[in-house]
Amino acid sequence: MTEGDIASHPLGIVQTQSVELFTERPLVLANGESLGPITVAYETYGELNEARDNGVYICHALTGDAHAAGWHGGDKHPGWWDNLIGPGKPVDTRKWFVVCSNLLGGCQGTTGPSSTNPATGDPWGLDFPLLDISDFVEVHRELARHLDVRRWHAVVGGSMGGMQALDWSMRYPQDMCNAAVIASTSRLTAQNIAFSAVGREAIMRDESFHDGHFAVRGENPDVGLTIARMMAHITYTSEEGFDEKFGRRPQYGASNRGFGVDFAVESYLEHQGEAFLSRFDALSYLYLTRVMDYFDPFGRDDALDLVRQHPVSYLVASFDTDWRFSTEHSRRLVRQLEGAGLPVTFRDFRSPWGHDSFLLEVPAYHETVRAFLECESATHPHAHSMREASR
Amino acid sequence: MTEGDIASHPLGIVQTQSVELFTERPLVLANGESLGPITVAYETYGELNEARDNGVYICHALTGDAHAAGWHGGDKHPGWWDNLIGPGKPVDTRKWFVVCSNLLGGCQGTTGPSSTNPATGDPWGLDFPLLDISDFVEVHRELARHLDVRRWHAVVGGSMGGMQALDWSMRYPQDMCNAAVIASTSRLTAQNIAFSAVGREAIMRDESFHDGHFAVRGENPDVGLTIARMMAHITYTSEEGFDEKFGRRPQYGASNRGFGVDFAVESYLEHQGEAFLSRFDALSYLYLTRVMDYFDPFGRDDALDLVRQHPVSYLVASFDTDWRFSTEHSRRLVRQLEGAGLPVTFRDFRSPWGHDSFLLEVPAYHETVRAFLECESATHPHAHSMREASR
Repeated sequence: MTEGDIASHPLGIVQTQSVELFTERPLVLANGESLGPITVAYETYGELNEARDNGVYICHALTGDAHAAGWHGGDKHPGWWDNLIGPGKPVDTRKWFVVCSNLLGGCQGTTGPSSTNPATGDPWGLDFPLLDISDFVEVHRELARHLDVRRWHAVVGGSMGGMQALDWSMRYPQDMCNAAVIASTSRLTAQNIAFSAVGREAIMRDESFHDGHFAVRGENPDVGLTIARMMAHITYTSEEGFDEKFGRRPQYGASNRGFGVDFAVESYLEHQGEAFLSRFDALSYLYLTRVMDYFDPFGRDDALDLVRQHPVSYLVASFDTDWRFSTEHSRRLVRQLEGAGLPVTFRDFRSPWGHDSFLLEVPAYHETVRAFLECESATHPHAHSMREASR
Repeated sequence: MTEGDIASHPLGIVQTQSVELFTERPLVLANGESLGPITVAYETYGELNEARDNGVYICHALTGDAHAAGWHGGDKHPGWWDNLIGPGKPVDTRKWFVVCSNLLGGCQGTTGPSSTNPATGDPWGLDFPLLDISDFVEVHRELARHLDVRRWHAVVGGSMGGMQALDWSMRYPQDMCNAAVIASTSRLTAQNIAFSAVGREAIMRDESFHDGHFAVRGENPDVGLTIARMMAHITYTSEEGFDEKFGRRPQYGASNRGFGVDFAVESYLEHQGEAFLSRFDALSYLYLTRVMDYFDPFGRDDALDLVRQHPVSYLVASFDTDWRFSTEHSRRLVRQLEGAGLPVTFRDFRSPWGHDSFLLEVPAYHETVRAFLECESATHPHAHSMREASR
């Protein structure tokens, strides 16, 4: 079997599993409220070794789910990070026991605002508690206990997934050897917040939103959610990527002017908006975007105390056309971590596809993730060798 | 009187005037349809000289109007470009006869899609003909004939206003000596089109839009128009400008988390969206954004033939944090014009405020506009001296 064959070798059919966590005592959330039991949807690929230390936790981004890799029977596409995860792939499932779970507050099998509120028997709606990235981390840790993973070889995430990897590494550094924070940030800018705010406004002012109680009426704020997704999608790609893919190409022909889908880029965006409706929930969109707005792990004075005592090795990766979380976000994060004496490998990758590059097969990026995971030691010498390798 | 006094000297109270044009024969639009008569709202400042050649035509951007400078009685703010136009200001009304008109398709006094369709007695709605930048130019020229201006000393515009100045200069170069194209472009990118497309989608999918016939029902697609404006406004400022102005500052206090206006930037955007409703029309928003999508004056093979025969002197100006029409747009335009042997002065100004910088008092920018207008000759030697001055 050549390297190429191995790299394209798929995981095959996988299944999403489900577990009830926090059944005996509820989770106390960052805002002080309690929540439990919490259903968590997750998938695993590969096998946990005897030492129970070969786990790689994959944290998903805003609209991701537990189905990171492999195929669900009947689907046209594999999991959302299938190009990265699998036998012979950068996150090699022949070596690593890979876990991915749907986030608390999500809508793909894990408890969220559209789940049933046991107190009323109806969907929670806006009565669902406000969440924090640290709440996601607590649920991930509880799942780790359930799966009997002793220590994570690495926690890996892109975008909001990177926020979880970062937060987890700072709160519980002893849980992991390595953390990969990809196309992410330690703090949203006003512009980042502004884009999310407009998306939320579109959802909440949709006539079918009904203060979040749309499900019991059999309605859905489809227009608002579509608009939010179309707008957000522009921020996930780049001007360069859009130009390369669509330019000013008409969709049907120049003679057909009007206010419909005149340009190919309009058709693409409309498709993105429509497709999103079938897989995402408006309330989860509100809750998860708001979590990002407030994320600011270096805001605490003692933020780095624990990780200084139990150093985690970091990979911080950015993409040069990402303007959602630009390279400058990653540079700032690197300065913050290196300022605390932590080992950090930083790479900025050339890719025309903007923020979404973290989901795509950018060869240098994939090679770096592979090398980062396969370094023998997770402490300082490891980071040193990575730096050498990336020159 | 010192320079400072002169610069702050206001125009005083001004009034919008109105004229019926194309009364004897209609305007044949770029798409072949005929439209007329056309009511045009306009303002003038300063006086036309005997040679009738000291006129400066101001072309407004997407959401502008005829009220460029001076004060309307009772208003809290002067005209939208009052910092640039007035006695002693860069566009000095002691020297120049300044004209600004509301665009065809607009909603501030000039005929547009919410005007009455004479064939039905109801507002035109989406039956209003599709427009082109060249249609705006034809109406500007008809107003020039009405005002008896022989030749424009300059045509000046920012953003979509710059598109008009550019198009006019290429179609009828003998009409003017100089053209200032500020924070503008000769062609939208796919990303530019995408943002406009999402704004239009928000308007047209608003439940109150009723296929454009909302006025006869006494309704208005306020939600859609608000969302469109909020989103567009993000593209008019810059990440740097937002950070400087708002950063992550909470609006009411950190203890008040929810899905309302938590951050100051959200309050600002909401205000922008609300304020827009009182001064802009959803149908004009559709028509005028679509005009921009299709603007591509260099798309014709003979595009530069006329202006080569009657050279116009150009000022092309951009702002370094403008990402709506970035400096690269202006650079491409400069290459296109210089490639045809035309005199071009190009300046890229430092300003943190993004695209909206063209509306703000950026000193180096204002000095350049003043110098550009006050150069004695409008042909090649003039441009040469401008280049010297800007070193």
